[in-house]
Amino acid sequence: MQRRKIRLTVQYDGYDYHGWQIQPGKRTIQGELSEAISNLVGHKITVRAASRTDASVSALGQVAVFEVNSPIPIENFAGAINDRLPPEIVVTFAEPADKEFNVMGGVTSKLYRYTICTAPDRPVLNIRHCWHIPKKLDVPAMDKAAKLLIGTHDFKSFAAAKDKRESSVRTIFSCGVTAESQSVYIDVEGDGFLYNMVRNIVGTLVEVGIGRMAPERITDILDAKDRTAAGPIAPPQGLCLMWVKY
Amino acid sequence: MQRRKIRLTVQYDGYDYHGWQIQPGKRTIQGELSEAISNLVGHKITVRAASRTDASVSALGQVAVFEVNSPIPIENFAGAINDRLPPEIVVTFAEPADKEFNVMGGVTSKLYRYTICTAPDRPVLNIRHCWHIPKKLDVPAMDKAAKLLIGTHDFKSFAAAKDKRESSVRTIFSCGVTAESQSVYIDVEGDGFLYNMVRNIVGTLVEVGIGRMAPERITDILDAKDRTAAGPIAPPQGLCLMWVKY
Repeated sequence: MQRRKIRLTVQYDGYDYHGWQIQPGKRTIQGELSEAISNLVGHKITVRAASRTDASVSALGQVAVFEVNSPIPIENFAGAINDRLPPEIVVTFAEPADKEFNVMGGVTSKLYRYTICTAPDRPVLNIRHCWHIPKKLDVPAMDKAAKLLIGTHDFKSFAAAKDKRESSVRTIFSCGVTAESQSVYIDVEGDGFLYNMVRNIVGTLVEVGIGRMAPERITDILDAKDRTAAGPIAPPQGLCLMWVKY
Repeated sequence: MQRRKIRLTVQYDGYDYHGWQIQPGKRTIQGELSEAISNLVGHKITVRAASRTDASVSALGQVAVFEVNSPIPIENFAGAINDRLPPEIVVTFAEPADKEFNVMGGVTSKLYRYTICTAPDRPVLNIRHCWHIPKKLDVPAMDKAAKLLIGTHDFKSFAAAKDKRESSVRTIFSCGVTAESQSVYIDVEGDGFLYNMVRNIVGTLVEVGIGRMAPERITDILDAKDRTAAGPIAPPQGLCLMWVKY
């Protein structure tokens, strides 16, 4: 039987999961997905993803691949995998991928959305997918600060200390803050992100939103190349991977 | 110190809870709320509610009361209780109640909303609060059937067998089915509901929506006064108590 590479689009509510990456004894998205597919195809496979999302982070457009020997027709894959997945994870599309398709290295751009809820009371039905800040945020100031992040910069000030990748230079293609009713959305599109980078950007933009930091400070923070220059990290559950482009 | 009666408006995501009512060794809304308030006021209290919602049922407008000896000013109660509650439960309002206020017996009307999601893929970020039926539902037919439930009827056909209340006559003031994007909402307002009545109504309306039952059958089902005449029960997580009137 010919070995095939299959590409999946995956959505998940990551709140109760220890992130994407398999960890012994913990519930992870990669673990659940790999197990479901292995059970379906009858041999052990491991899925790999575009983004190793953190614990409690969700996705509406994660991309994942695996290789398989099974003769199952491509159009039956998504449904058959979904029958074997817990309700918080779903494969929305399965398609054949080229042998050369590099799910992580081939990414040209990804969009993360971070959701803040500014309602006075805890939004109990949405508390797993937002950061609740019961205050009026200065959205135009946050958006002004966000725009200063666009471009190719050294984002060391926004990376977790434990990120050990050689270069901390990344390109942000777009970064904007919008408000709708009692929600504030922070959308960041880039070619790649350092560990905790989006959540550190969000925490810093919130400092601007509550008036504790001027929007112009972003430039100084970038120049500092020092994590302590930026604001505190935002909690994970507001973060969602919206899509990945190749 | 004078004993006071305090009325609360409460919201909760009931998905991970064993319903409102305290049960030994199980996580319940009444249990969490009673414990939080007892810790706050320094003596043991038990809250009582307008509706004993079932396991996995949520609420945006539950009403609850308790009596207390504490001198805490009324305007500080909601915030202080919320500080002691898990994130899935919130008190949105606290107000003084008359001694005669009867939280269950005094109810004149309650509205339950049931949410169905008809999107082709599982809505992972909302799966805890809807019934996923990936089909086109005939909403006008469902609404026609819903309208036949309005009025004072014997709802025995829609009551769980284990409901042992003497009379199964209730009054439904309004019942309607509406669609918005990929959601279908079933709103039922009545003076009271038998055990599982709303979920049995929803299950029956879905039979109409998928074309397995004509809307006119509702009248026969009411006349039958027999649970087996109606459709199957809908799952609990789509149900939400929206408000209670006195």
